[in-house]
Amino acid sequence: MKTTEKPAVLLLSGGLDSATTLAIAQEAGYRCHCLSVDYGQRHTAELGAAQRVAQSLGAIEHRVIRLDLHLFGGSALTDATIAVPTTGVQPGIPVTYVPARNTVMLSLALAWAEVLGACDIFIGVNAVDYSGYPDCRPDYIRAFETMANLATKAAVEGHRLQLHAPLIELSKAEIIRRGQLLGVDYGQTVSCYQADDLGRACGSCDACRLRRAGFEAVGIPDPTRYLMYSSHL
Amino acid sequence: MKTTEKPAVLLLSGGLDSATTLAIAQEAGYRCHCLSVDYGQRHTAELGAAQRVAQSLGAIEHRVIRLDLHLFGGSALTDATIAVPTTGVQPGIPVTYVPARNTVMLSLALAWAEVLGACDIFIGVNAVDYSGYPDCRPDYIRAFETMANLATKAAVEGHRLQLHAPLIELSKAEIIRRGQLLGVDYGQTVSCYQADDLGRACGSCDACRLRRAGFEAVGIPDPTRYLMYSSHL
Repeated sequence: MKTTEKPAVLLLSGGLDSATTLAIAQEAGYRCHCLSVDYGQRHTAELGAAQRVAQSLGAIEHRVIRLDLHLFGGSALTDATIAVPTTGVQPGIPVTYVPARNTVMLSLALAWAEVLGACDIFIGVNAVDYSGYPDCRPDYIRAFETMANLATKAAVEGHRLQLHAPLIELSKAEIIRRGQLLGVDYGQTVSCYQADDLGRACGSCDACRLRRAGFEAVGIPDPTRYLMYSSHL
Repeated sequence: MKTTEKPAVLLLSGGLDSATTLAIAQEAGYRCHCLSVDYGQRHTAELGAAQRVAQSLGAIEHRVIRLDLHLFGGSALTDATIAVPTTGVQPGIPVTYVPARNTVMLSLALAWAEVLGACDIFIGVNAVDYSGYPDCRPDYIRAFETMANLATKAAVEGHRLQLHAPLIELSKAEIIRRGQLLGVDYGQTVSCYQADDLGRACGSCDACRLRRAGFEAVGIPDPTRYLMYSSHL
Protein backbone atom coordinates (compact mmCIF):
# COMPACT_ATOMS: atom_id res chain seq x y z
CA MET A 1 0.00 0.00 0.00
CA LYS A 2 1.25 3.45 -0.89
CA THR A 3 1.57 5.96 1.90
CA THR A 4 1.70 9.72 1.73
CA GLU A 5 1.59 12.34 4.40
CA LYS A 6 -1.91 13.39 3.36
CA PRO A 7 -4.64 12.71 5.90
CA ALA A 8 -8.27 12.54 4.80
CA VAL A 9 -11.63 12.12 6.49
CA LEU A 10 -13.85 9.52 4.87
CA LEU A 11 -17.53 8.95 5.57
CA LEU A 12 -17.93 5.22 6.00
CA SER A 13 -21.42 3.76 6.32
CA GLY A 14 -20.47 0.11 6.10
CA GLY A 15 -22.18 -0.26 2.72
CA LEU A 16 -20.78 -1.19 -0.67
CA ASP A 17 -20.23 2.36 -1.93
CA SER A 18 -18.32 3.81 0.99
CA ALA A 19 -16.17 0.65 1.25
CA THR A 20 -15.18 1.10 -2.40
CA THR A 21 -14.51 4.78 -1.78
CA LEU A 22 -12.19 3.85 1.06
CA ALA A 23 -10.30 1.41 -1.19
CA ILE A 24 -9.92 4.16 -3.82
CA ALA A 25 -8.69 6.73 -1.29
CA GLN A 26 -6.23 4.28 0.27
CA GLU A 27 -4.96 3.34 -3.18
CA ALA A 28 -4.40 7.02 -3.93
CA GLY A 29 -2.21 7.15 -0.84
CA TYR A 30 -4.41 9.00 1.66
CA ARG A 31 -4.22 8.17 5.35
CA CYS A 32 -7.93 7.68 5.98
CA HIS A 33 -9.68 8.66 9.20
CA CYS A 34 -13.07 7.00 8.84
CA LEU A 35 -16.22 8.46 10.35
CA SER A 36 -19.53 6.68 10.82
CA VAL A 37 -22.61 8.43 12.11
CA ASP A 38 -24.94 6.52 14.39
CA TYR A 39 -27.95 8.65 13.54
CA GLY A 40 -30.66 6.32 14.77
CA GLN A 41 -30.90 4.32 11.56
CA ARG A 42 -33.08 1.20 11.71
CA HIS A 43 -30.22 -1.13 12.48
CA THR A 44 -26.66 -0.82 13.65
CA ALA A 45 -25.29 -3.83 11.76
CA GLU A 46 -23.80 -1.39 9.25
CA LEU A 47 -21.75 0.26 12.00
CA GLY A 48 -20.15 -3.11 12.76
CA ALA A 49 -19.59 -3.59 9.05
CA ALA A 50 -17.92 -0.17 8.84
CA GLN A 51 -15.53 -1.16 11.63
CA ARG A 52 -14.54 -4.38 9.82
CA VAL A 53 -14.15 -2.65 6.46
CA ALA A 54 -11.98 0.12 7.94
CA GLN A 55 -9.72 -2.42 9.57
CA SER A 56 -9.39 -4.76 6.61
CA LEU A 57 -8.63 -1.97 4.14
CA GLY A 58 -5.99 -0.47 6.43
CA ALA A 59 -7.59 2.80 7.51
CA ILE A 60 -5.75 4.78 10.20
CA GLU A 61 -8.77 4.83 12.48
CA HIS A 62 -12.55 4.56 12.64
CA ARG A 63 -14.78 6.63 14.89
CA VAL A 64 -18.52 6.60 15.42
CA ILE A 65 -20.35 9.76 16.41
CA ARG A 66 -23.87 9.57 17.82
CA LEU A 67 -26.56 11.93 16.64
CA ASP A 68 -30.15 11.01 17.18
CA LEU A 69 -32.05 12.15 14.08
CA HIS A 70 -35.17 10.49 15.53
CA LEU A 71 -35.68 13.88 17.16
CA PHE A 72 -36.71 15.16 13.73
CA GLY A 73 -38.02 11.96 12.06
CA GLY A 74 -39.35 12.40 8.54
CA SER A 75 -37.76 9.30 6.98
CA ALA A 76 -38.37 5.57 6.89
CA LEU A 77 -34.83 5.21 8.21
CA THR A 78 -35.35 7.38 11.30
CA ASP A 79 -39.06 6.94 12.05
CA ALA A 80 -40.24 3.43 12.91
CA THR A 81 -43.80 4.33 11.87
CA ILE A 82 -42.77 4.80 8.21
CA ALA A 83 -42.24 1.46 6.44
CA VAL A 84 -39.24 0.77 4.19
CA PRO A 85 -40.64 0.11 0.67
CA THR A 86 -39.97 -3.42 -0.59
CA THR A 87 -41.92 -3.55 -3.85
CA GLY A 88 -39.23 -2.19 -6.17
CA VAL A 89 -37.45 1.05 -7.02
CA GLN A 90 -39.97 3.77 -7.92
CA PRO A 91 -39.45 7.13 -9.68
CA GLY A 92 -39.02 10.19 -7.44
CA ILE A 93 -37.40 10.67 -4.06
CA PRO A 94 -38.12 7.65 -1.83
CA VAL A 95 -39.31 7.75 1.81
CA THR A 96 -35.90 6.37 2.79
CA TYR A 97 -34.50 9.84 2.02
CA VAL A 98 -33.25 11.26 5.35
CA PRO A 99 -33.69 15.06 5.36
CA ALA A 100 -30.35 16.79 4.89
CA ARG A 101 -28.45 13.63 5.83
CA ASN A 102 -25.42 14.13 3.62
CA THR A 103 -25.21 17.79 4.67
CA VAL A 104 -25.22 16.79 8.32
CA MET A 105 -22.63 14.04 7.77
CA LEU A 106 -20.36 16.20 5.61
CA SER A 107 -20.53 18.93 8.25
CA LEU A 108 -19.30 16.49 10.86
CA ALA A 109 -16.57 15.30 8.49
CA LEU A 110 -15.61 18.94 7.95
CA ALA A 111 -15.35 19.53 11.70
CA TRP A 112 -13.10 16.52 12.16
CA ALA A 113 -11.01 17.34 9.10
CA GLU A 114 -10.29 20.78 10.51
CA VAL A 115 -9.19 19.37 13.86
CA LEU A 116 -6.96 16.81 12.11
CA GLY A 117 -5.52 19.39 9.73
CA ALA A 118 -6.91 17.37 6.80
CA CYS A 119 -7.77 19.15 3.53
CA ASP A 120 -9.54 16.19 1.92
CA ILE A 121 -12.92 14.63 2.58
CA PHE A 122 -14.25 11.54 0.77
CA ILE A 123 -17.90 10.55 0.36
CA GLY A 124 -19.27 7.58 -1.56
CA VAL A 125 -22.29 9.17 -3.26
CA ASN A 126 -22.92 7.79 -6.73
CA ALA A 127 -24.79 8.00 -9.99
CA VAL A 128 -27.43 5.52 -8.88
CA ASP A 129 -28.24 7.47 -5.73
CA TYR A 130 -28.26 10.59 -7.89
CA SER A 131 -31.51 9.56 -9.52
CA GLY A 132 -33.28 9.62 -6.18
CA TYR A 133 -31.49 11.65 -3.53
CA PRO A 134 -30.89 15.39 -4.05
CA ASP A 135 -27.79 15.42 -1.85
CA CYS A 136 -25.97 12.99 -4.12
CA ARG A 137 -25.87 15.31 -7.16
CA PRO A 138 -22.64 16.80 -8.52
CA ASP A 139 -24.02 20.37 -8.16
CA TYR A 140 -24.69 19.73 -4.50
CA ILE A 141 -21.20 18.34 -3.89
CA ARG A 142 -19.64 21.41 -5.51
CA ALA A 143 -21.84 23.78 -3.49
CA PHE A 144 -20.89 22.06 -0.25
CA GLU A 145 -17.21 22.38 -1.14
CA THR A 146 -17.63 26.11 -1.87
CA MET A 147 -19.42 26.65 1.43
CA ALA A 148 -16.81 24.61 3.34
CA ASN A 149 -14.06 26.81 1.95
CA LEU A 150 -15.71 29.81 3.60
CA ALA A 151 -16.64 28.05 6.84
CA THR A 152 -13.43 27.18 8.58
CA LYS A 153 -10.39 28.69 10.23
CA ALA A 154 -8.32 26.32 8.06
CA ALA A 155 -9.82 27.82 4.90
CA VAL A 156 -9.24 31.37 6.14
CA GLU A 157 -5.60 30.39 6.63
CA GLY A 158 -5.36 29.20 3.03
CA HIS A 159 -5.81 25.44 3.38
CA ARG A 160 -8.23 24.71 0.59
CA LEU A 161 -10.60 21.83 1.27
CA GLN A 162 -11.32 19.30 -1.46
CA LEU A 163 -14.46 17.19 -1.37
CA HIS A 164 -13.93 13.95 -3.29
CA ALA A 165 -16.85 11.90 -4.59
CA PRO A 166 -15.01 9.36 -6.76
CA LEU A 167 -18.10 7.21 -7.42
CA ILE A 168 -20.37 10.02 -8.46
CA GLU A 169 -20.42 9.19 -12.17
CA LEU A 170 -20.26 5.40 -11.80
CA SER A 171 -23.00 2.80 -12.00
CA LYS A 172 -23.30 0.17 -9.28
CA ALA A 173 -21.68 -2.38 -11.60
CA GLU A 174 -18.74 -0.07 -12.32
CA ILE A 175 -18.31 0.52 -8.59
CA ILE A 176 -18.21 -3.21 -7.89
CA ARG A 177 -15.70 -3.82 -10.70
CA ARG A 178 -13.47 -1.08 -9.34
CA GLY A 179 -13.70 -2.39 -5.79
CA GLN A 180 -12.95 -5.94 -6.88
CA LEU A 181 -9.73 -4.80 -8.53
CA LEU A 182 -8.79 -3.03 -5.29
CA GLY A 183 -9.50 -6.07 -3.13
CA VAL A 184 -12.68 -4.95 -1.36
CA ASP A 185 -14.36 -7.86 0.42
CA TYR A 186 -18.02 -7.05 -0.27
CA GLY A 187 -19.04 -9.90 2.03
CA GLN A 188 -18.10 -7.56 4.89
CA THR A 189 -20.40 -4.77 3.75
CA VAL A 190 -24.08 -4.23 4.60
CA SER A 191 -26.25 -2.15 2.25
CA CYS A 192 -29.75 -3.23 3.31
CA TYR A 193 -31.97 -0.55 4.89
CA GLN A 194 -33.39 -3.04 7.37
CA ALA A 195 -30.75 -5.69 7.97
CA ASP A 196 -31.06 -7.75 11.14
CA ASP A 197 -28.60 -7.52 14.02
CA LEU A 198 -26.36 -10.08 12.34
CA GLY A 199 -26.17 -7.96 9.20
CA ARG A 200 -28.41 -10.25 7.12
CA ALA A 201 -30.15 -8.37 4.31
CA CYS A 202 -33.88 -8.32 3.57
CA GLY A 203 -33.30 -8.76 -0.16
CA SER A 204 -36.24 -6.61 -1.17
CA CYS A 205 -35.60 -2.95 -0.20
CA ASP A 206 -34.24 -0.55 -2.83
CA ALA A 207 -30.70 -0.79 -1.45
CA CYS A 208 -30.78 -4.59 -1.71
CA ARG A 209 -32.23 -4.48 -5.23
CA LEU A 210 -29.67 -1.99 -6.55
CA ARG A 211 -26.85 -3.93 -4.94
CA ARG A 212 -27.96 -7.27 -6.27
CA ALA A 213 -28.50 -5.88 -9.76
CA GLY A 214 -24.93 -4.57 -9.61
CA PHE A 215 -23.46 -8.00 -8.90
CA GLU A 216 -25.62 -9.52 -11.61
CA ALA A 217 -24.46 -6.92 -14.14
CA VAL A 218 -20.81 -7.60 -13.29
CA GLY A 219 -21.45 -11.32 -13.45
CA ILE A 220 -19.87 -12.24 -10.15
CA PRO A 221 -21.45 -14.09 -7.21
CA ASP A 222 -23.34 -11.85 -4.78
CA PRO A 223 -21.66 -12.34 -1.37
CA THR A 224 -24.56 -10.75 0.53
CA ARG A 225 -26.03 -12.80 3.36
CA TYR A 226 -29.79 -12.69 2.91
CA LEU A 227 -32.49 -13.47 5.42
CA MET A 228 -34.67 -14.62 2.55
CA TYR A 229 -33.70 -14.82 -1.07
CA SER A 230 -36.07 -14.79 -3.98
CA SER A 231 -34.85 -14.98 -7.56
CA HIS A 232 -38.04 -13.26 -8.72
CA LEU A 233 -37.70 -9.74 -7.37
CA MET B 1 -47.93 39.38 18.84
CA LYS B 2 -48.48 38.97 15.08
CA THR B 3 -49.04 35.49 13.77
CA THR B 4 -48.64 34.13 10.27
CA GLU B 5 -48.72 30.64 8.91
CA LYS B 6 -44.98 30.65 8.27
CA PRO B 7 -42.95 28.22 10.34
CA ALA B 8 -39.24 28.78 10.86
CA VAL B 9 -36.41 26.92 12.56
CA LEU B 10 -34.28 29.12 14.79
CA LEU B 11 -30.93 28.20 16.33
CA LEU B 12 -31.16 29.21 19.98
CA SER B 13 -28.06 29.02 22.14
CA GLY B 14 -29.44 30.80 25.18
CA GLY B 15 -27.13 33.76 24.64
CA LEU B 16 -27.90 37.41 23.98
CA ASP B 17 -27.67 37.23 20.18
CA SER B 18 -29.93 34.27 19.52
CA ALA B 19 -32.50 35.58 22.03
CA THR B 20 -32.64 38.86 20.10
CA THR B 21 -32.89 36.94 16.83
CA LEU B 22 -35.88 35.06 18.23
CA ALA B 23 -37.56 38.31 19.23
CA ILE B 24 -37.00 39.68 15.71
CA ALA B 25 -38.37 36.53 14.04
CA GLN B 26 -41.41 36.45 16.31
CA GLU B 27 -42.06 40.11 15.66
CA ALA B 28 -41.92 39.42 11.91
CA GLY B 29 -44.66 36.87 12.46
CA TYR B 30 -42.81 33.57 12.15
CA ARG B 31 -43.87 30.58 14.20
CA CYS B 32 -40.49 29.67 15.64
CA HIS B 33 -39.34 26.12 16.28
CA CYS B 34 -36.20 26.62 18.36
CA LEU B 35 -33.26 24.24 18.24
CA SER B 36 -30.42 24.05 20.72
CA VAL B 37 -27.46 21.75 20.24
CA ASP B 38 -25.96 20.11 23.29
CA TYR B 39 -22.56 19.61 21.68
CA GLY B 40 -20.52 19.04 24.79
CA GLN B 41 -19.90 22.72 25.51
CA ARG B 42 -18.26 23.51 28.85
CA HIS B 43 -21.50 24.12 30.65
CA THR B 44 -25.15 23.44 30.04
CA ALA B 45 -26.50 26.54 31.80
CA GLU B 46 -27.07 28.07 28.37
CA LEU B 47 -29.41 25.20 27.43
CA GLY B 48 -31.58 26.05 30.44
CA ALA B 49 -31.42 29.70 29.41
CA ALA B 50 -32.51 28.76 25.89
CA GLN B 51 -35.54 26.97 27.30
CA ARG B 52 -36.56 30.01 29.37
CA VAL B 53 -35.99 32.43 26.50
CA ALA B 54 -38.03 30.29 24.05
CA GLN B 55 -40.90 30.15 26.49
CA SER B 56 -40.94 33.81 27.48
CA LEU B 57 -40.76 35.04 23.88
CA GLY B 58 -43.60 32.74 22.81
CA ALA B 59 -41.81 30.25 20.54
CA ILE B 60 -43.90 27.30 19.35
CA GLU B 61 -41.43 24.78 20.75
CA HIS B 62 -37.85 24.21 21.84
CA ARG B 63 -35.87 21.03 21.25
CA VAL B 64 -32.36 20.05 22.25
CA ILE B 65 -30.37 17.64 20.11
CA ARG B 66 -27.27 15.95 21.54
CA LEU B 67 -24.10 15.70 19.52
CA ASP B 68 -20.86 15.07 21.30
CA LEU B 69 -18.22 17.16 19.54
CA HIS B 70 -15.74 16.07 22.24
CA LEU B 71 -15.12 13.19 19.85
CA PHE B 72 -13.22 15.65 17.67
CA GLY B 73 -12.05 18.25 20.24
CA GLY B 74 -9.96 21.09 18.85
CA SER B 75 -11.61 23.95 20.76
CA ALA B 76 -11.52 25.41 24.25
CA LEU B 77 -15.28 24.86 24.31
CA THR B 78 -15.12 21.12 23.56
CA ASP B 79 -11.74 20.10 25.02
CA ALA B 80 -11.25 20.53 28.76
CA THR B 81 -7.46 20.62 28.31
CA ILE B 82 -7.63 23.90 26.33
CA ALA B 83 -8.25 26.91 28.61
CA VAL B 84 -10.76 29.63 27.81
CA PRO B 85 -8.78 32.89 27.42
CA THR B 86 -9.65 35.51 30.01
CA THR B 87 -7.11 38.26 29.36
CA GLY B 88 -9.03 40.19 26.75
CA VAL B 89 -10.12 39.94 23.11
CA GLN B 90 -7.12 39.35 20.83
CA PRO B 91 -6.79 39.69 17.05
CA GLY B 92 -7.26 36.52 14.97
CA ILE B 93 -9.46 33.50 15.43
CA PRO B 94 -9.65 32.56 19.14
CA VAL B 95 -9.25 29.05 20.62
CA THR B 96 -12.94 29.17 21.52
CA TYR B 97 -13.65 28.70 17.81
CA VAL B 98 -15.36 25.28 17.45
CA PRO B 99 -14.40 23.72 14.11
CA ALA B 100 -17.31 23.92 11.65
CA ARG B 101 -19.77 24.59 14.47
CA ASN B 102 -22.18 26.80 12.57
CA THR B 103 -22.09 24.45 9.59
CA VAL B 104 -22.99 21.52 11.82
CA MET B 105 -25.75 23.48 13.57
CA LEU B 106 -27.19 24.90 10.37
CA SER B 107 -27.21 21.40 8.85
CA LEU B 108 -29.29 20.17 11.77
CA ALA B 109 -31.60 23.17 11.42
CA LEU B 110 -31.91 22.36 7.71
CA ALA B 111 -32.86 18.75 8.49
CA TRP B 112 -35.56 19.82 10.92
CA ALA B 113 -36.82 22.59 8.62
CA GLU B 114 -37.34 20.06 5.86
CA VAL B 115 -39.30 17.72 8.13
CA LEU B 116 -41.45 20.63 9.35
CA GLY B 117 -41.99 22.00 5.84
CA ALA B 118 -40.32 25.25 6.91
CA CYS B 119 -38.54 27.40 4.29
CA ASP B 120 -36.91 29.77 6.77
CA ILE B 121 -33.98 29.33 9.13
CA PHE B 122 -32.75 31.99 11.56
CA ILE B 123 -29.27 32.24 13.07
CA GLY B 124 -27.95 34.96 15.36
CA VAL B 125 -24.46 35.47 13.94
CA ASN B 126 -23.32 39.07 14.06
CA ALA B 127 -20.79 41.68 13.07
CA VAL B 128 -18.80 41.29 16.28
CA ASP B 129 -18.40 37.54 15.84
CA TYR B 130 -17.52 38.28 12.22
CA SER B 131 -14.17 39.71 13.23
CA GLY B 132 -13.15 36.40 14.75
CA TYR B 133 -15.16 33.43 13.49
CA PRO B 134 -15.10 32.51 9.78
CA ASP B 135 -18.57 30.93 9.90
CA CYS B 136 -20.18 34.22 10.92
CA ARG B 137 -19.32 36.09 7.69
CA PRO B 138 -21.96 37.18 5.16
CA ASP B 139 -20.20 35.24 2.35
CA TYR B 140 -20.40 32.08 4.40
CA ILE B 141 -24.10 32.57 5.15
CA ARG B 142 -24.84 33.04 1.44
CA ALA B 143 -22.80 29.97 0.48
CA PHE B 144 -24.65 27.84 3.03
CA GLU B 145 -27.97 29.03 1.64
CA THR B 146 -26.90 28.17 -1.92
CA MET B 147 -25.78 24.70 -0.83
CA ALA B 148 -28.98 24.14 1.16
CA ASN B 149 -31.04 24.91 -1.92
CA LEU B 150 -29.40 22.00 -3.72
CA ALA B 151 -29.41 19.63 -0.74
CA THR B 152 -33.01 18.82 0.01
CA LYS B 153 -36.08 17.18 -1.41
CA ALA B 154 -37.97 20.36 -0.47
CA ALA B 155 -35.62 22.43 -2.66
CA VAL B 156 -35.97 19.98 -5.57
CA GLU B 157 -39.73 20.43 -5.25
CA GLY B 158 -39.37 24.20 -5.53
CA HIS B 159 -39.53 25.32 -1.89
CA ARG B 160 -36.69 27.79 -1.74
CA LEU B 161 -34.95 27.98 1.63
CA GLN B 162 -34.02 31.37 3.09
CA LEU B 163 -31.31 31.68 5.69
CA HIS B 164 -31.87 34.77 7.84
CA ALA B 165 -29.06 36.36 9.83
CA PRO B 166 -30.74 39.59 10.97
CA LEU B 167 -27.91 40.60 13.34
CA ILE B 168 -25.10 40.12 10.87
CA GLU B 169 -24.39 43.82 10.31
CA LEU B 170 -25.16 44.99 13.86
CA SER B 171 -22.81 45.81 16.71
CA LYS B 172 -23.45 44.35 20.16
CA ALA B 173 -24.88 47.68 21.29
CA GLU B 174 -27.26 47.84 18.33
CA ILE B 175 -28.39 44.28 19.04
CA ILE B 176 -29.15 45.13 22.67
CA ARG B 177 -31.07 48.27 21.68
CA ARG B 178 -33.13 46.28 19.22
CA GLY B 179 -33.84 43.53 21.75
CA GLN B 180 -34.84 46.02 24.41
CA LEU B 181 -37.45 47.52 22.11
CA LEU B 182 -38.79 44.01 21.47
CA GLY B 183 -38.97 43.14 25.16
CA VAL B 184 -36.11 40.65 25.46
CA ASP B 185 -35.25 39.95 29.10
CA TYR B 186 -31.46 39.75 28.88
CA GLY B 187 -31.33 38.63 32.51
CA GLN B 188 -32.54 35.24 31.22
CA THR B 189 -29.67 34.85 28.75
CA VAL B 190 -26.22 33.36 29.33
CA SER B 191 -23.35 34.37 27.04
CA CYS B 192 -20.33 33.33 29.14
CA TYR B 193 -18.13 30.54 27.73
CA GLN B 194 -17.62 29.07 31.19
CA ALA B 195 -20.68 29.94 33.26
CA ASP B 196 -21.32 27.83 36.35
CA ASP B 197 -24.27 25.47 36.67
CA LEU B 198 -26.44 28.31 37.93
CA GLY B 199 -25.67 30.36 34.82
CA ARG B 200 -23.39 32.84 36.61
CA ALA B 201 -20.86 34.41 34.25
CA CYS B 202 -17.09 34.53 34.72
CA GLY B 203 -16.94 38.17 33.65
CA SER B 204 -13.58 37.84 31.93
CA CYS B 205 -13.89 35.60 28.83
CA ASP B 206 -14.33 37.22 25.41
CA ALA B 207 -18.08 36.56 25.38
CA CYS B 208 -18.47 38.28 28.78
CA ARG B 209 -16.33 41.23 27.70
CA LEU B 210 -18.18 41.81 24.42
CA ARG B 211 -21.51 41.52 26.18
CA ARG B 212 -20.61 43.89 28.97
CA ALA B 213 -19.16 46.43 26.56
CA GLY B 214 -22.47 46.29 24.68
CA PHE B 215 -24.51 47.19 27.75
CA GLU B 216 -22.06 49.97 28.61
CA ALA B 217 -22.30 51.39 25.07
CA VAL B 218 -26.09 51.41 25.24
CA GLY B 219 -25.95 52.92 28.71
CA ILE B 220 -28.31 50.50 30.40
CA PRO B 221 -27.65 48.35 33.47
CA ASP B 222 -26.03 44.99 32.70
CA PRO B 223 -28.44 42.33 34.03
CA THR B 224 -25.81 39.57 33.88
CA ARG B 225 -25.26 37.59 37.06
CA TYR B 226 -21.51 37.45 37.60
CA LEU B 227 -19.51 35.10 39.77
CA MET B 228 -16.97 37.87 40.21
CA TYR B 229 -17.18 41.37 38.88
CA SER B 230 -14.29 43.69 38.27
CA SER B 231 -14.76 47.16 36.89
CA HIS B 232 -11.22 47.13 35.52
CA LEU B 233 -11.37 44.55 32.74
